[in-house]
Amino acid sequence: MLTTPFDDDQLHEECGIFGVYRHADAARHVALGLHALQHRGQEAAGIVAFDGARFQAHRAMGHVAEAFESDRVMAELAGYTAIGHVRYATFGATILRNVQPLFADMSFGGFAVAHNGNLTNAMALRRRLVKAGCIFQSTSDTEVILHLVSTSQQNGVIDRFIDALKQIQGAYSLVALTDNMMIGVRDPLGVRPLVLGKFEDGTMVFASETCALDIIGADFVRDVEAGEIVIVSDEGIRSLKPFGSPKSRFCIFEHIYFARPDSIVDGRSVYDVRKHIGAELARESGVPADVIIPVPDSGVPAAIGYAAEAGVPFELGIIRNHYVGRTFIEPTQQIRNLGVKLKHNANRPQIEGKRVILVDDSIVRGTTSLKIVQMVRDAGATEVHMRIASPPTTHSCFYGVDTPERSQLLAATHDIEGMRKFIQADSLAFISMDGLYRAMGEPRRNTDAPQYCDACFTGDYPIPLTDHWGSEEDGPRLPLFSKAI
Amino acid sequence: MLTTPFDDDQLHEECGIFGVYRHADAARHVALGLHALQHRGQEAAGIVAFDGARFQAHRAMGHVAEAFESDRVMAELAGYTAIGHVRYATFGATILRNVQPLFADMSFGGFAVAHNGNLTNAMALRRRLVKAGCIFQSTSDTEVILHLVSTSQQNGVIDRFIDALKQIQGAYSLVALTDNMMIGVRDPLGVRPLVLGKFEDGTMVFASETCALDIIGADFVRDVEAGEIVIVSDEGIRSLKPFGSPKSRFCIFEHIYFARPDSIVDGRSVYDVRKHIGAELARESGVPADVIIPVPDSGVPAAIGYAAEAGVPFELGIIRNHYVGRTFIEPTQQIRNLGVKLKHNANRPQIEGKRVILVDDSIVRGTTSLKIVQMVRDAGATEVHMRIASPPTTHSCFYGVDTPERSQLLAATHDIEGMRKFIQADSLAFISMDGLYRAMGEPRRNTDAPQYCDACFTGDYPIPLTDHWGSEEDGPRLPLFSKAI
Amino acid sequence: MLTTPFDDDQLHEECGIFGVYRHADAARHVALGLHALQHRGQEAAGIVAFDGARFQAHRAMGHVAEAFESDRVMAELAGYTAIGHVRYATFGATILRNVQPLFADMSFGGFAVAHNGNLTNAMALRRRLVKAGCIFQSTSDTEVILHLVSTSQQNGVIDRFIDALKQIQGAYSLVALTDNMMIGVRDPLGVRPLVLGKFEDGTMVFASETCALDIIGADFVRDVEAGEIVIVSDEGIRSLKPFGSPKSRFCIFEHIYFARPDSIVDGRSVYDVRKHIGAELARESGVPADVIIPVPDSGVPAAIGYAAEAGVPFELGIIRNHYVGRTFIEPTQQIRNLGVKLKHNANRPQIEGKRVILVDDSIVRGTTSLKIVQMVRDAGATEVHMRIASPPTTHSCFYGVDTPERSQLLAATHDIEGMRKFIQADSLAFISMDGLYRAMGEPRRNTDAPQYCDACFTGDYPIPLTDHWGSEEDGPRLPLFSKAI
Amino acid sequence: MLTTPFDDDQLHEECGIFGVYRHADAARHVALGLHALQHRGQEAAGIVAFDGARFQAHRAMGHVAEAFESDRVMAELAGYTAIGHVRYATFGATILRNVQPLFADMSFGGFAVAHNGNLTNAMALRRRLVKAGCIFQSTSDTEVILHLVSTSQQNGVIDRFIDALKQIQGAYSLVALTDNMMIGVRDPLGVRPLVLGKFEDGTMVFASETCALDIIGADFVRDVEAGEIVIVSDEGIRSLKPFGSPKSRFCIFEHIYFARPDSIVDGRSVYDVRKHIGAELARESGVPADVIIPVPDSGVPAAIGYAAEAGVPFELGIIRNHYVGRTFIEPTQQIRNLGVKLKHNANRPQIEGKRVILVDDSIVRGTTSLKIVQMVRDAGATEVHMRIASPPTTHSCFYGVDTPERSQLLAATHDIEGMRKFIQADSLAFISMDGLYRAMGEPRRNTDAPQYCDACFTGDYPIPLTDHWGSEEDGPRLPLFSKAI
Repeated sequence: MLTTPFDDDQLHEECGIFGVYRHADAARHVALGLHALQHRGQEAAGIVAFDGARFQAHRAMGHVAEAFESDRVMAELAGYTAIGHVRYATFGATILRNVQPLFADMSFGGFAVAHNGNLTNAMALRRRLVKAGCIFQSTSDTEVILHLVSTSQQNGVIDRFIDALKQIQGAYSLVALTDNMMIGVRDPLGVRPLVLGKFEDGTMVFASETCALDIIGADFVRDVEAGEIVIVSDEGIRSLKPFGSPKSRFCIFEHIYFARPDSIVDGRSVYDVRKHIGAELARESGVPADVIIPVPDSGVPAAIGYAAEAGVPFELGIIRNHYVGRTFIEPTQQIRNLGVKLKHNANRPQIEGKRVILVDDSIVRGTTSLKIVQMVRDAGATEVHMRIASPPTTHSCFYGVDTPERSQLLAATHDIEGMRKFIQADSLAFISMDGLYRAMGEPRRNTDAPQYCDACFTGDYPIPLTDHWGSEEDGPRLPLFSKAI
Repeated sequence: MLTTPFDDDQLHEECGIFGVYRHADAARHVALGLHALQHRGQEAAGIVAFDGARFQAHRAMGHVAEAFESDRVMAELAGYTAIGHVRYATFGATILRNVQPLFADMSFGGFAVAHNGNLTNAMALRRRLVKAGCIFQSTSDTEVILHLVSTSQQNGVIDRFIDALKQIQGAYSLVALTDNMMIGVRDPLGVRPLVLGKFEDGTMVFASETCALDIIGADFVRDVEAGEIVIVSDEGIRSLKPFGSPKSRFCIFEHIYFARPDSIVDGRSVYDVRKHIGAELARESGVPADVIIPVPDSGVPAAIGYAAEAGVPFELGIIRNHYVGRTFIEPTQQIRNLGVKLKHNANRPQIEGKRVILVDDSIVRGTTSLKIVQMVRDAGATEVHMRIASPPTTHSCFYGVDTPERSQLLAATHDIEGMRKFIQADSLAFISMDGLYRAMGEPRRNTDAPQYCDACFTGDYPIPLTDHWGSEEDGPRLPLFSKAI
Repeated sequence: MLTTPFDDDQLHEECGIFGVYRHADAARHVALGLHALQHRGQEAAGIVAFDGARFQAHRAMGHVAEAFESDRVMAELAGYTAIGHVRYATFGATILRNVQPLFADMSFGGFAVAHNGNLTNAMALRRRLVKAGCIFQSTSDTEVILHLVSTSQQNGVIDRFIDALKQIQGAYSLVALTDNMMIGVRDPLGVRPLVLGKFEDGTMVFASETCALDIIGADFVRDVEAGEIVIVSDEGIRSLKPFGSPKSRFCIFEHIYFARPDSIVDGRSVYDVRKHIGAELARESGVPADVIIPVPDSGVPAAIGYAAEAGVPFELGIIRNHYVGRTFIEPTQQIRNLGVKLKHNANRPQIEGKRVILVDDSIVRGTTSLKIVQMVRDAGATEVHMRIASPPTTHSCFYGVDTPERSQLLAATHDIEGMRKFIQADSLAFISMDGLYRAMGEPRRNTDAPQYCDACFTGDYPIPLTDHWGSEEDGPRLPLFSKAI
Repeated sequence: MLTTPFDDDQLHEECGIFGVYRHADAARHVALGLHALQHRGQEAAGIVAFDGARFQAHRAMGHVAEAFESDRVMAELAGYTAIGHVRYATFGATILRNVQPLFADMSFGGFAVAHNGNLTNAMALRRRLVKAGCIFQSTSDTEVILHLVSTSQQNGVIDRFIDALKQIQGAYSLVALTDNMMIGVRDPLGVRPLVLGKFEDGTMVFASETCALDIIGADFVRDVEAGEIVIVSDEGIRSLKPFGSPKSRFCIFEHIYFARPDSIVDGRSVYDVRKHIGAELARESGVPADVIIPVPDSGVPAAIGYAAEAGVPFELGIIRNHYVGRTFIEPTQQIRNLGVKLKHNANRPQIEGKRVILVDDSIVRGTTSLKIVQMVRDAGATEVHMRIASPPTTHSCFYGVDTPERSQLLAATHDIEGMRKFIQADSLAFISMDGLYRAMGEPRRNTDAPQYCDACFTGDYPIPLTDHWGSEEDGPRLPLFSKAI
């Protein structure tokens, strides 16, 4: 079997989270919300529901629609409150024990938690906890949080939870469930998204993106703020700010690629931002051309913005095959060379004899861009210009995005001209850093206090990378561990 | 479980076919070709390969990438020649016995056949054959062809095959495989598509659409002609025309909806035709608006054409969720009302406060259009105008397209104003018949001898509907039949 | 994977059949009857039911209890009449298309048939039928019968069926189902068993063995006679004898090994016959010993008979592991040498220091006997004597029993002393032919007109072996054929 | 679906354990050993292997032969040391998380443990551990041991393990695995069995019963003693006795029913003990009869012993269907009444007109005995006498045997005559307590210091039942718990 050729050359979000408090169909609504967040993780999905007496969980590999298709499964998830999770595996194979939400019986009752992001001191904490006698059942960062809560010396769930949060570092949006509360949390810099929504009847909802509110007909209330803990209970809504009021550093890549174009994240329309990036690109690095062609699907809004600004026709010059699954037949070498075509095909009549500007969201390893350029040239383009709706990706992300090691990033080892040669385009341009910030509505990047986390472009990591920076003697990230149940 | 809400309100192509003669990786190439034809049928897929001594078959429910993922399966399909089929079930549940290609040992050797289309006298022929002692193992029309070949009094495979073809009525493109030939056939009116392709090394290929040639790097040679039998063997290529030279009546709906936009069918770029339809629509029924929004994905090219002609911005105002599978959780009534949102979501910032023109390919039952209009209005559109890239669909298809009974077709029971009211749009317009033909490059529809099969718009059925018109005493379409193996 | 070691060295019955006419729970009763016949075939099972309007079938690989476990499956098999089949595959892999009962829509209505036995002219008939245009969908002999019925020039189901039976050769017990009859048939020599049973309410039942009547509480009425056709319908029971009254040649191996000990077959208690064989063995070839130990499970009744006659204690000196499935882990060579122990273990305290007589039903290849003797010797036996409850198996069966080729039969290539040396026993004796017939209640074997089919011991084949004796040019048994659906 | 009718009316052992230290094929040998112990648990199986660097685990529902059939699975279990477990679920549904061996990364390295038995203070310990912050992932008693080891204040694995063992109460045989030791333990009273075996090359083996040594060709060395810890490492074998030298109280029911007849447990041949019980029964409660019939399979050795002592013929008058799986079709009431026949059938010719003595191992609820007596009477027995190879089962077991609640035990609520009436036998007798002890080779039961644990017959529980005797406020056995992963 072969992982579809493009997967290796794309960044992957790790997770999406969702929760519903007090609704007759809590688990069904969570399943729908997760379905709308499916783009944030396709490997596995899980829901934990509470019915006033018992917690029930269902977790499965695969898509939400399959995992929660069975009436029997949904019947077992009866209950008026539920939280859920979709996941893309970061480390090694996803095993079922790692699928969230995780749950534990603690001295004060049941506690479930779902996590979007990545802890940067998880290994250090894990070593400390194991030394103290804690037994880990998964390789998931999230389990660290469970053990910190469980072993906290504080009284009460909330104080224990805050105690745990104060020990962890990293990017995290969390939704937690106890027997009388649903809790939403964003890390002190608010790197990963989390919004609060509300049904007409007052039922409260947490979601990674607003598109998950839309699918169930809930209204957007507001973002959970950076460093904020929002507690939803029968007493209403409470907000805690145990970290004070740090300045937010939202992940700018959510706007460029991860979030769905119909979502409002961090206060902005994703689609609009992408169109503005396209327009900035056209202004910054315009070149005479006959047609603007997006690399589907993520390049489409930027290409529309580019085309409108440049006054050049926008056409679907590359058609995507939407039936691409995760694997396909093991190809012979001859077939492997056709690889990219499993997913994309040139729409020759829109390309032949034309000067083409391709618009894509980013370049990771560059192997896909090379094949796309080649495919467009084979279809008869006289010139192929590549325009990228983000600055060069020069650094790995440690905050919940699955990036290759730095040495695998084309932009980490090549300058622009080197990259152009690698992908064999006639010209290559990336949006400038300030152009990107302008598209976000900022005058420019504030280098003293950047408005966003842009570490993948700058190496400016706003949260310590404790595990990554740790010494050799700290041992491997994954210690001895038993295989999947 | 629930079939995804939109399925009921869309037309479905029945099948795609593909064949490769004399290639070291015949079956792998057929799997790739079928993958490119996946849009023509997602229910099941099959391949029959011949290695010079034995025929081997693999057929499975589901997508091509799953059905042929296993190395073991592909190893068993070794052989230098192979044909394949993707299928959308027309009658009842798809059962594995119905999955094509069908195969039979006959007195002259093995014979396999894959079929895209529908026979209109299959039941009459079946009754006659059963009376003569033939035993049917499937409910598939295609098996009728097998029995006609097997029981033919002619000598030689080709004469038997022609004998069979002369008895069947209907729309059919066929690819057949014997122990020394691969044969491609189109019915006398050439209703369904079939093209001939070639590898650089001379290997010949049959495919329903050119996009399936692209994926394996084969060149387009020509269409198989209406009523033509093309025989590929080690002796080269032979063309027979047992039906003389009837005038072609290609299915115009292939251009409007079924074919992939990057295919060339019947000599024209599908994408171009759709853009021209959009432009014609803009000229015929333009209305002041702020934004042109396609109903994704099929409405996109027409919307681009409309927007360019009208000088109004094109925006992705409706975002499609590509993770919609065939089923989802059984919704409660409240959730059912959210149904359409499983697949589509309004991109509110592109809609709010604007006069919107929606462009869609067709209206079948109208229930989806109603929900789309509602969704767009809920997102704040001040006006919602629906423009349809085909004439009103007033008649059922009996030539291989899965249409509802006529009484279920909105256009069969409502005039334009009635349809507008039903879908609650501010205005509704369909392209005119002549406008459609103009977009196809014709001056107008030739009413005496129409250039295309447009029966779904006109009721002008060019091939007799023997089974459909038959008397009651002919009995039911499906006689006693045992359940799926 | 490894087929459990003993399978290769045991004879296998091909099939068991069962039918119930006019009972509210027809299919459930058939499933129970098949469960009681599971020893006759463990590879696959199937049921066809008729509800007065439609035939429904379910066929599956594996045991009856799994194949018909699902309530949904049983609900679909509603109907007042049903026939069923359990199968052990004779040729190649069992594929689902071969699983019986087979069914066909014929000009007169539906016709289903289940078959226990083997046709000896199936290939010759198949060639003739294919030449006439018949299309075969399976490699099963049984399908020949379907086509003979379907293409018969006779009128009426019964006459067509008789017409078909007159053309086939071989050993066969059949149960057939039409829309108003259930029909039971035994071949003219009555080689394979078939009995008629009755519920208190008059519902009629066909079964391969009486133990299948017991499980559903039906009473044994009588054997279907050799060459008899028994027709059960709403008009009652009719008996036809189209072959006159040939003398029966029932398979003597059914008594020795195949039939369940609690069955009455051909008028005799299987358990009693086996005990009598054991007693004959003790009289014919007694030897001083301390303990009689059966090779479980088939050797138990003969060992009890032997022990009682010899006045030597009977002990379970070999314990069988009943959890042996069809496959186990691929063993290394070291483990392979332990092979036999997956299924059997010596009960050392019953063996150590003792002179042991082992009693087994037959010797096929001899490899198992060798390992058993070795195991018993390793457990401390001072002498190991093997006594076999059948004469030497010198010939292959062509009448429905899965025997190795003749060259693989130990008795075909070794005399008794050679066999003794091969299995390394201190002595070896088989029951004499006349001793066997005495145990059956006969004075001796009537060599002019043997009372039983004993071809596997004598090579005296009472039914022509047309396919087997055919010339090379008749071609291979399995012509071109497509892989399993 | 229906659990096979007999399951409810039989006692079930919970588990079997097995371990191999330093062998090239450790995991394969463990799989074979578990296969030989399959009678001790059929619900699930697991193996943990260590290759000098990493621990690997595979656990699955179902039989050993299925769970470890895959070459891929076995390849992943490479390593020179492995322990394994077969399991019968005691509480609720078996879920995969409960399948042993359990494993945890602890501060000193990996630690795996497999457990046969039951802890009687598991809930009390669990509550204490949860209060201290431990997170449990399973409902298994065994996890308590893991947490006790993990949180122990002692240094070194052995001291931590002993610290844990000193806190637990109950019946337990354990096999544990660390990165340099394999450890076998029996509880201070040695209630559950555990033996030490050795290959010729010195490889050491732990097994629940000797039959598991036989299958891999290992020699029996000795029993692990009551309260003994046996440590196998590269330094050789070490024995610790942290509990001093308490007098053993081995479970007498292992001899009566659980252990395989070819095993030597606690120094005695199980088969011999059962024969002696049968002989004692014949002496204590003989009655004139024509035939001795065992209730298969567990009653066979006792029936042989009875028959030999009584001089009455032993016959297989009841035939068992070995193809009974865990479920079957949901029967209608009529079929339910046939229930017992799914598994057993009367061998009528051995019964009809005879005075029958049935020999069974025990009576639990009595429902099966009732049906068996009825079946034998229906087959024509003139008298039916039931003889039971154990004293009346009047008390539940809390030491690892799955018994019904006391109120469900027929002997807890009926005297002998009441039980006889219930099962409708002509006479009923159980072996006396002293008769049972005589069969074990003792002069009688030493009432001051019984030689065995016979609590199920006497209510004399040698180990405190802390959880069972605990007050209401201790809460339910299973607190809030999430559903199966």
